[in-house]
Amino acid sequence: MDSWVDGQPADALSLKDRGLAYGDGLFETIAVHNGAPVLLDRHLVRLVEGCQRLAINLDHSALCSELSSYARALGEGVLKLIVTRGDGLRGYAPDPLAQARRIMQGSPPAAYPVANAEHGVRLFPCSTRLSRQPLLAGLKHLNRLEQVIARSEWQDTEHGEGLMLDQAGRVIEGVFSNLFLVRDGVLITADLKRCGVAGVMRAELLYQAESLGIPTQITDISLDQLQWADEVFVCNSVYGVWPVRACAALRWPVGSLTRKLQTIARALLDT
Amino acid sequence: MDSWVDGQPADALSLKDRGLAYGDGLFETIAVHNGAPVLLDRHLVRLVEGCQRLAINLDHSALCSELSSYARALGEGVLKLIVTRGDGLRGYAPDPLAQARRIMQGSPPAAYPVANAEHGVRLFPCSTRLSRQPLLAGLKHLNRLEQVIARSEWQDTEHGEGLMLDQAGRVIEGVFSNLFLVRDGVLITADLKRCGVAGVMRAELLYQAESLGIPTQITDISLDQLQWADEVFVCNSVYGVWPVRACAALRWPVGSLTRKLQTIARALLDT
Repeated sequence: MDSWVDGQPADALSLKDRGLAYGDGLFETIAVHNGAPVLLDRHLVRLVEGCQRLAINLDHSALCSELSSYARALGEGVLKLIVTRGDGLRGYAPDPLAQARRIMQGSPPAAYPVANAEHGVRLFPCSTRLSRQPLLAGLKHLNRLEQVIARSEWQDTEHGEGLMLDQAGRVIEGVFSNLFLVRDGVLITADLKRCGVAGVMRAELLYQAESLGIPTQITDISLDQLQWADEVFVCNSVYGVWPVRACAALRWPVGSLTRKLQTIARALLDT
Repeated sequence: MDSWVDGQPADALSLKDRGLAYGDGLFETIAVHNGAPVLLDRHLVRLVEGCQRLAINLDHSALCSELSSYARALGEGVLKLIVTRGDGLRGYAPDPLAQARRIMQGSPPAAYPVANAEHGVRLFPCSTRLSRQPLLAGLKHLNRLEQVIARSEWQDTEHGEGLMLDQAGRVIEGVFSNLFLVRDGVLITADLKRCGVAGVMRAELLYQAESLGIPTQITDISLDQLQWADEVFVCNSVYGVWPVRACAALRWPVGSLTRKLQTIARALLDT
């Protein structure tokens, strides 16, 4: 499907766009099912928080109307939304009056191996460490070189995702997923106050677990804690939940809470 | 002057470009004088190192020929070169065969207040800290949100630049400059192994100082060392050298080594 820029079909972007110059913007990767964006409210909450923290002026009502039309036209697939600060003058100083540019790109449903969801994935232990930057932590911003470098660390198809630690060796997330572990019935995921992307599926699964009375914990996670987990899984808003079977020498069984949350995610994405 | 993409006049970029999607690329801001790029060899050295570290395939001979033609057509001003990994598929994984895209943008000579060079600048003490990422340190890559946020910290014209520290409180650089201090006749600048941009003018001034028999030191710099400096200045490849007079409550005189290096930089940029 054609891309849109500010609601109009387009295949090109102004060379003055600050998204290109500085990665000055944000993005959302949104599953579209039956012509509707899945978990749209959560995507919008994160995007709006990002715009506030970066002081980007976004026309919210134009965006919502375009998202709805674009998803309807796409039908099934993935809608990538990029919001940039718009065109820039020379230099880093943002124009406080600049209006954000809204870019939408559509693609067919993601084609990951079925085995990832059914039997689980092996994580590649990335040596690329996430840097500590509380001002950007949690946001899905356009400065993603750390992920590009981390994803270049493996080319085989044996590893379905990579495990990323921060500079202090804490377990944070996957390259394109958030990570959860289960220990003694508690659902645990990393605190993302220093780095990492606060994923929409992560937020939804925490909410769903709480609704089911499952205790949850957002905390710093060590490699030791990961090793002794009863279950490990990764998630994102496109593929849902993949059990994690292994990372380097570590092994985990596919657990029942993982399967329960996977079923919930699948219901959101597929029905 | 018109922009060029891969040697052809263009004002727009493919929406699939990974420079937009992930900040997956590098840039150089090159002064052009009498139709020639100033300090071109140093710009190319940094760019090539960046391409190697990010595994970006750049057609070096096409680039050099385009730079030379573009600068000749521009005559006087600033040539901004952006090199991106080119168009991408979905996801972070780079295509190892992708050819880099070469983008050139020209603008008139920078119009900074003459007083910056003559009387020196006051630095705004930015609270935005640079994150530690050795894999990217030194490179002029397109992930520049830290600079955008830091530059938003002041809007007045009283501050000509901002001072940036790293997360551990070390003195690193300006927002768009490198920083030097002079103490007991030694020219000192920050070690950029953890963060920061290894500026072309910084490299040139270190080389020029060594040629003049002036001792130089690349090391970690504390705020205490900055406070007790005999002279402080900032530099970049467009404006040359600006003495630093003040930062918050700190004050420095404009010193003789600063003036000597400023004269050298001016000769490179103006003649």
